[in-house]
Amino acid sequence: MKTQPQISACFYIMNGVEVLDFAGPMEVFALAGFKVFTVALTKERVLSQGILQVMPDYAITDVPSADVLAVFGGNPASFRNDTLIEWIKKYQQDTDYVFSVCSGAFALGHAGLLDGQTATTFHSRIEEMRTAFPKVTVLSGVRFVDNGRIITTAGISAGIDGALHLVSRLKGEAAARAVAEEMEYDRWIPNNGLLTTKQTLL
Amino acid sequence: MKTQPQISACFYIMNGVEVLDFAGPMEVFALAGFKVFTVALTKERVLSQGILQVMPDYAITDVPSADVLAVFGGNPASFRNDTLIEWIKKYQQDTDYVFSVCSGAFALGHAGLLDGQTATTFHSRIEEMRTAFPKVTVLSGVRFVDNGRIITTAGISAGIDGALHLVSRLKGEAAARAVAEEMEYDRWIPNNGLLTTKQTLL
Repeated sequence: MKTQPQISACFYIMNGVEVLDFAGPMEVFALAGFKVFTVALTKERVLSQGILQVMPDYAITDVPSADVLAVFGGNPASFRNDTLIEWIKKYQQDTDYVFSVCSGAFALGHAGLLDGQTATTFHSRIEEMRTAFPKVTVLSGVRFVDNGRIITTAGISAGIDGALHLVSRLKGEAAARAVAEEMEYDRWIPNNGLLTTKQTLL
Repeated sequence: MKTQPQISACFYIMNGVEVLDFAGPMEVFALAGFKVFTVALTKERVLSQGILQVMPDYAITDVPSADVLAVFGGNPASFRNDTLIEWIKKYQQDTDYVFSVCSGAFALGHAGLLDGQTATTFHSRIEEMRTAFPKVTVLSGVRFVDNGRIITTAGISAGIDGALHLVSRLKGEAAARAVAEEMEYDRWIPNNGLLTTKQTLL
């Protein structure tokens, strides 16, 4: 982690982004005291799930650095964009963590960040991801996978669990529990559904 | 329910609205095939949780009718606004359901909709709500309360459960289960945490 006292998280959003994919982790990180901001390809309005009109804080051309880069699902076809993938490759070099929810894992796959790693994604896209990224071990039936620097979660609401896990790593389990209680995510059990690379290798 | 085939839900949002309060039910209703739109006092940008910049679809002066009116927490002080409360009183007359998450229950309380009813709210505002609305039976330790037409939920993530409950009522439990599975809200148990008015009276 960098020396700055407040942890920062950059949320990449795009048209078609699934609303709970980003809103769950946004809620968790906000309650944990992180500074969260949004970025899109341009500063034009992003339409989430065909419903929610979001104005991104930054375009990829002017976004400040962050400790965490987070990407989300809902429109993985949009990740087949060289400008975006080059930006992800470059931007993540200055982050401590890379975090994906749902089919957001495809963005990390296209950027080559998951090669040789273990990952997960939205339940209905497991096979598609295995085919698209043969160098990645793609797991089904897990809620999130922690490779150390790169954390990928399963679909939609699993992003909440992955975000709580990252808070637990960065600020301790007591802090993560306090966030879960504040948001009345009563049924959260630390490490439930987690698979670390170490566990995978055992 | 009205004769229109698609159920519609009007989400009232305001500056300071808690992001997961509205995004959880938005995800649930969207996956259930509802038409969801947002409304604010004016069409000016709404800043959710100090982070997310949202452009509302409508102002209260031009919003179309809906089957469900939903209100959310995060800034209950903003509900002390006569224009808003008069709009809620009038708008809800043409809805089949009124739904609140977290401290959104205070908006319904100010509008008098909870008088003689049983309700819940964010865990840290239970006592404040009892004091503010002595004609309302305010319950702690429940995830949501269903009065038939008016459903109030506890804090933040409890909105997901309340929304799944409403989907279950409107489209059947199988449809609600399918939504929970799609969003990987694995630990959802139908009716878990529910208190109906009938149960209260027993």
